[in-house]
Amino acid sequence: MITTPTLLLDEQRCRTNIRSMCKKAKQQGLTLRPHFKTHQSLEIGRWFKEEGVQSITVSSLEMAQYFAAEWADITVAFPINILEIARINALASSIQLNVLIENTAAVRALEEQLQHPVGVFLKIDVGYGRTGIQPDQTGQLDELLKEVSASTKLQLIGFLAHAGHTYSCRSKAEILQVHQASMGALINLKKHYADRYPNLQLSYGDTPSCSVANNFEGLDELRPGNFVFYDLTQARIGSNTWDQIAVAMACPIVAIHEDRRELVLYGGGVHFSKDRMTGEPEGTVWGRVVRDEGSGWGNVEPGMYLRSLSQEHGIVVVPETVDFDFRVGEIVKVLPVHSCMAANAMKRYLTTDGRWIERL
Amino acid sequence: MITTPTLLLDEQRCRTNIRSMCKKAKQQGLTLRPHFKTHQSLEIGRWFKEEGVQSITVSSLEMAQYFAAEWADITVAFPINILEIARINALASSIQLNVLIENTAAVRALEEQLQHPVGVFLKIDVGYGRTGIQPDQTGQLDELLKEVSASTKLQLIGFLAHAGHTYSCRSKAEILQVHQASMGALINLKKHYADRYPNLQLSYGDTPSCSVANNFEGLDELRPGNFVFYDLTQARIGSNTWDQIAVAMACPIVAIHEDRRELVLYGGGVHFSKDRMTGEPEGTVWGRVVRDEGSGWGNVEPGMYLRSLSQEHGIVVVPETVDFDFRVGEIVKVLPVHSCMAANAMKRYLTTDGRWIERL
Repeated sequence: MITTPTLLLDEQRCRTNIRSMCKKAKQQGLTLRPHFKTHQSLEIGRWFKEEGVQSITVSSLEMAQYFAAEWADITVAFPINILEIARINALASSIQLNVLIENTAAVRALEEQLQHPVGVFLKIDVGYGRTGIQPDQTGQLDELLKEVSASTKLQLIGFLAHAGHTYSCRSKAEILQVHQASMGALINLKKHYADRYPNLQLSYGDTPSCSVANNFEGLDELRPGNFVFYDLTQARIGSNTWDQIAVAMACPIVAIHEDRRELVLYGGGVHFSKDRMTGEPEGTVWGRVVRDEGSGWGNVEPGMYLRSLSQEHGIVVVPETVDFDFRVGEIVKVLPVHSCMAANAMKRYLTTDGRWIERL
Repeated sequence: MITTPTLLLDEQRCRTNIRSMCKKAKQQGLTLRPHFKTHQSLEIGRWFKEEGVQSITVSSLEMAQYFAAEWADITVAFPINILEIARINALASSIQLNVLIENTAAVRALEEQLQHPVGVFLKIDVGYGRTGIQPDQTGQLDELLKEVSASTKLQLIGFLAHAGHTYSCRSKAEILQVHQASMGALINLKKHYADRYPNLQLSYGDTPSCSVANNFEGLDELRPGNFVFYDLTQARIGSNTWDQIAVAMACPIVAIHEDRRELVLYGGGVHFSKDRMTGEPEGTVWGRVVRDEGSGWGNVEPGMYLRSLSQEHGIVVVPETVDFDFRVGEIVKVLPVHSCMAANAMKRYLTTDGRWIERL
């Protein structure tokens, strides 16, 4: 019985999301190296294994350590943190560990302190503007390629990019534009270096591009992560429909304000995280309520949403179209704005079949 | 040695914040029942004990359970979640547990299932609009007061309010206005019921009011929480100065972008949470960088701030006034926008004296 905020996981929806992305990668002749920062769970990882996935992506060395128990090929898709050299060495001694490099300081620190070989991707900024080397900074790229390939401990693999600017898109057409430009930038780089470095691999992928696009020609691997659960943010971008979302937070009602047609849920920022969507038809939305269906859930209830979150409280607006017929102690189910952050905030999942799934 | 994002705690600043609030409460003849949801740590709790604090506030029954190991009088300042009756009974069997009630459904559920007495505060909405009964809803209050005082298991204590609308203030004068109105509403209620319920206690307090105001006449206890650490949000409101902030996140530099004068830190939403401040001189701010001073930190570096956070990345803007002289692997220290949420996201604290402090 659910008594406190609980992150529900619909295993069927989740497995369908996994299968569908695996199928797309396979059809395109690409390796799928899914990003596991979203679910952070060995058990959910096994659902990918069942579909033939053999290599994964994570966003921290801590996660790499956790997943190394069952995965032998892991890319840490975050600029390598050279302060964690002890963890890097421990991992590199037992698995194929791939790291992201974008400056010579990291190359030199690794060269000095590495005890085992690691694979290296150069991080390319294809327009997101967060981090990485811009494709036209060929001076910097030349230098890094030279240093990495001269190293005995660093194995040059190729270029890696995350087109995170798809997250500001609001339609499939916009996503496809960003995708084409981002993919094009990577492919041009590969061509530019084809003579000197003929075996460079291209690793690419964010959930919006990988969900919407069907042309990945010239790339080698895809690294989407969020698609395993999807969420409201991805639905707004155009990556998924609401009914593909595989997680929902079950929250007890603790207070009822019929005068203002609002419910107070036990479910706040410590459960959902503080991600929000602005500019929705209702204004700022922190989650959307779905219809209760046994241990699972059904469609989004139009106009019923979380209008604010504090540390433990969530305030739900009840539209006039819904009978105001609620009881204290009832459970309300809410789709998260950002499933990666909500999953990270919670310690485990409860499947709609009533099974607990642990995570890191 | 710090290798990953670490929440630093300056014990001296923290103890000064505690002492100063204890002193104010004492001078005003009030009980201080500090909210422990901010630090969530038994050890930091002991620093309050050393100043004579005997009763505390928390925001969940889970926290109450954790703190019950060392505290015998705990108020859960959240509308009671009747689904957790097992925890309520376990706690009520060993400590003085006080709960918040704002509807008869909760009274009846408790009356039916309680095995031990619990103290009851009626939650009053003094204008924040999150939850609670509005002071003019005397019909509802009459009914609840009657039901609670008729109960053998519920011990009526009084009225409790959280003037959370001080958080939208931008000056001490505004805070004082909200404070006077909120306090006044509680005091009027007490007067209104003085004949029928002569012993009603008034519990009040948010960090802005408790930090800024000096008149609490007519109230019985104060429940601020955030003041133990303070943060940038409180500083903007006017509750504290930047140098009273007792926590800072130490984050390794993982990439450097001199062309755009930015640093990429290992430190993201999973560390800071996703709270932000909009409308700052720089725009949206997710944290402010302080000057490094040995194991601790000094003043805020003007214009140097976190401009965005993703799951693990934080992007710092370096103003022209600061020499662009950074190395990958260096530590940057950042004051959080919201210390409660950052502390909740992290598993423990590292004091500037090099000692780890655990939390729930």
